[in-house]
Amino acid sequence: MPRPVRLYNHSQAPNPRRVRIFAAEKGIELSLEDVDVLAGQSRTPEFLAKNSSGGVPVLELDDGSYLSESVAICRFLEGLHPEPNLLGRDLREQAEIEMWNRRMELELFAAIGRTIQNTSPIFQGRFKQFPDYGEAQRIVVYQRRASAAASSRALTN
Amino acid sequence: MPRPVRLYNHSQAPNPRRVRIFAAEKGIELSLEDVDVLAGQSRTPEFLAKNSSGGVPVLELDDGSYLSESVAICRFLEGLHPEPNLLGRDLREQAEIEMWNRRMELELFAAIGRTIQNTSPIFQGRFKQFPDYGEAQRIVVYQRRASAAASSRALTN
Repeated sequence: MPRPVRLYNHSQAPNPRRVRIFAAEKGIELSLEDVDVLAGQSRTPEFLAKNSSGGVPVLELDDGSYLSESVAICRFLEGLHPEPNLLGRDLREQAEIEMWNRRMELELFAAIGRTIQNTSPIFQGRFKQFPDYGEAQRIVVYQRRASAAASSRALTN
Repeated sequence: MPRPVRLYNHSQAPNPRRVRIFAAEKGIELSLEDVDVLAGQSRTPEFLAKNSSGGVPVLELDDGSYLSESVAICRFLEGLHPEPNLLGRDLREQAEIEMWNRRMELELFAAIGRTIQNTSPIFQGRFKQFPDYGEAQRIVVYQRRASAAASSRALTN
């Protein structure tokens, strides 16, 4: 199985951070190479050859291949370093973790992204913003956060 | 390992369809129970006890537990019925499939969803629509579809 060479990274973006947290929990030291996404470094022909979606994180492997998408990278790291187990020990547990992971992504993280992309000055000029839509998504985020907190209390009581 | 009892389903929604396609490819016959999502049947207290997110698909298992999120259900079915293999035979292949699956979901399927939710009469009154945002997302869908087709041609040439 190929081994990681380096992780193409951005210090402030949430997706590479997710991989860094996952690796840190497992005690894996990844060699980081920062990519200045805001300056367009992830959209150069050279970088698009590594990840045609033009984003970070990207994991470079020692067989010359590349792997992108934060959760795909985490799954690969879990297979290389099974302990401490983070994605489930048996099939039922793996399915349960997949379910909660996706709920947090699709219901909460994606709505946070839509809020920030449509309201933050960071994204002005990068693509057309719809501030009214962004503010409506901000309300969705707060509603879902409250709902997730209530579910979490119900689970732990 | 618990076994499937039934799949709570909606004949027109894309997410349960994804599970039905996955099961059909494996030759698994799932007992389907249709839920009238548009009439609010997935938001009743009884249904929310099965899936607090209030949607379909939900897989009921014979130990009395429930599993939601289409990809979590597919992963569970893959574990119960490994052949024909759909999610990868080794770690590198599993990671590659996870990557492409997520690209199609996050870049294409999610943009299609945002287009329809903000422009289709089906969703009028279910939540506030932002038609200008929806039309901008429609353009994103066409751009990404063209880009995915070009990548696909590059892969197969």
